[in-house]
Amino acid sequence: MTPDKITAAYYRGDKTFIVETTEVPQPKPGEVLLKIAYCGICGTDMHVYHGNMDARVGLNRIVGHEMSATVAEVGEGVSEFDMGQKVVVRPLAACGNCPACAEGYSHICHNLQFLGLDTDGAMQEYWSIPAETLHVLPEDIRLDHAALIEPVAVACHDVRLSQLTPGENAVVIGGGPIGVLVAMVAREAGGNVTISEVNENRLRIADQLGFDTVNPLKSDLVAAINEKTGGKGAEVVFEVSGSQPGVDAMTTVAATRGRIVMVAIHAAPPKVDMFQFFWRELKLIGARVYEPEDYEKAIELIRNGEVGAETIITDVSPLTDIQSAFEALDSSPVAMKSLIKVGGGQ
Amino acid sequence: MTPDKITAAYYRGDKTFIVETTEVPQPKPGEVLLKIAYCGICGTDMHVYHGNMDARVGLNRIVGHEMSATVAEVGEGVSEFDMGQKVVVRPLAACGNCPACAEGYSHICHNLQFLGLDTDGAMQEYWSIPAETLHVLPEDIRLDHAALIEPVAVACHDVRLSQLTPGENAVVIGGGPIGVLVAMVAREAGGNVTISEVNENRLRIADQLGFDTVNPLKSDLVAAINEKTGGKGAEVVFEVSGSQPGVDAMTTVAATRGRIVMVAIHAAPPKVDMFQFFWRELKLIGARVYEPEDYEKAIELIRNGEVGAETIITDVSPLTDIQSAFEALDSSPVAMKSLIKVGGGQ
Ligand SMILES: [Zn+2]
Ligand SMILES: [Zn+2]
Ligand SMILES: [Zn+2]
Ligand SMILES: [Zn+2]
Repeated sequence: MTPDKITAAYYRGDKTFIVETTEVPQPKPGEVLLKIAYCGICGTDMHVYHGNMDARVGLNRIVGHEMSATVAEVGEGVSEFDMGQKVVVRPLAACGNCPACAEGYSHICHNLQFLGLDTDGAMQEYWSIPAETLHVLPEDIRLDHAALIEPVAVACHDVRLSQLTPGENAVVIGGGPIGVLVAMVAREAGGNVTISEVNENRLRIADQLGFDTVNPLKSDLVAAINEKTGGKGAEVVFEVSGSQPGVDAMTTVAATRGRIVMVAIHAAPPKVDMFQFFWRELKLIGARVYEPEDYEKAIELIRNGEVGAETIITDVSPLTDIQSAFEALDSSPVAMKSLIKVGGGQ
Repeated sequence: MTPDKITAAYYRGDKTFIVETTEVPQPKPGEVLLKIAYCGICGTDMHVYHGNMDARVGLNRIVGHEMSATVAEVGEGVSEFDMGQKVVVRPLAACGNCPACAEGYSHICHNLQFLGLDTDGAMQEYWSIPAETLHVLPEDIRLDHAALIEPVAVACHDVRLSQLTPGENAVVIGGGPIGVLVAMVAREAGGNVTISEVNENRLRIADQLGFDTVNPLKSDLVAAINEKTGGKGAEVVFEVSGSQPGVDAMTTVAATRGRIVMVAIHAAPPKVDMFQFFWRELKLIGARVYEPEDYEKAIELIRNGEVGAETIITDVSPLTDIQSAFEALDSSPVAMKSLIKVGGGQ
């Protein structure tokens, strides 16, 4: 039974979330009302918390998009879901009219709306969203683990665009939450993965997950990759660090004709060794969010336990504690992914 | 009949070529002795002339690799050529042992030797080269036009790696000799080509060749491309300018998922808008020299007159005038390609 009143967390500016009681959203025609189970805190949500996105999200926004849920109610014209069915949302709304949409790249629509940023998101007990954004989950998946599907889908997109084939060497530059997920998906695809990271806490987690690791501040990354690859270099490189040293490294560790995937957001244009692109015929591939097949792959990986969800999820807090969860994540040197238990469930 | 003595032009440093008489080279086993017809002056040869490559080429070097020739004599073990047959040389010597050679990318061998820079080249009446570097020409090709095959093969490689398909829009940034050849090959591949160039003399030539042109110092390149493409942008971009403004332009004119081919040599790393690569899922493709199929394509284009050789070849001088030919090319605002008539012939 859907209640009349629900709890929701509002970003009100100045590093502040307020938890309030509000009306339950009503599903419009074509929408589905979801009972949210868990919602992860994304790097983007942390940007919101820091006030960097106030112009975009405003000062009364329910954030959250890395979620898992069950179906609570369907709007007019929606019949393909069962009540209580486990689902996740692919939080993209495309315009359908721009050149990107016309070419079939609606995930990078020129007028893309991101649910949970440009609209209210999943940090509330019930969330109503367009039916076409849903992916149905297998019954035996854990709903806390399922909250990782969205960030894993990002990693699946990155690895798919890299065209990594089994046995190839991959270097992931930057071992934060996204880098580690990229590394796991690349390993599952058959890649021989090395993580380059400067933070010792993150290196320890990468070690625990069984990856080769290098701290480029302490040892020579290029020498390590050359030794590992017999002087060839890495066929695939993922630049996840968003830093100038990361961009410097990406062209030096790549093999001839190597593919470098640009995962990170570089707010300012870094200097890039274009000569090396020419000389070794390197390729750079920009990769953003995900397409439906990346979600299906992510669901499969989470269900099969190929992603070490237990290691990635370092904290779970109730929705009423969202403020302290953001504060803790912001100041923790070891946290990877913090989940908010909105409604909970298995 | 091969003479005993031949004329050759030696680079002796300090912007100086000396023309001297020397012994005719003898073809070693596996080599072919060529009677050179024409040899073009490459941008790289101009770098030699300016003294920028003294450490690599030394001070007693016969340069030249954009050549056409006929077969004069074959060395031991070579039988597949007829005397007088028209040929060109693909001037690359790979090591056969490095990771690039192992992967089949011998044209970007880690120990690549470039004939006419790392060895003596074609600015001499007779030149002996390894038989495997030869491409046989059709009998009805003009030998002056055939001297353009090497630079056209570069353009064929660039366009092939771009995966341009008929009807796509291409922007060539930089309308010098290489840019114009890239534009012509892209047009022949079905591309709808715009050339961006700041030099008015070069723009006039591009206009004469029937290309859409923009001077980005005088009008808005992005607006022009958006108008031409209905707001989509160019599916393919060739960065040939080697300049920071060119690198700035390449990411702004590209369509979502556009392919940008890095043709230019950027000696210093430019700033590159990595955010745009991420946001629009752009691809950057490094492209260097050519593979055998690019030579075959270039031969076909030159033979069929698809490349406006008459417009591209702006000067022809005898070998004895090589010094003044370099001086003239260096100071000319309108010259595109200067040929040296080494032996001549049709
Ligand atoms: Zn996210
Ligand atoms: Zn759109
Ligand atoms: Zn050349
Ligand atoms: Zn080699």
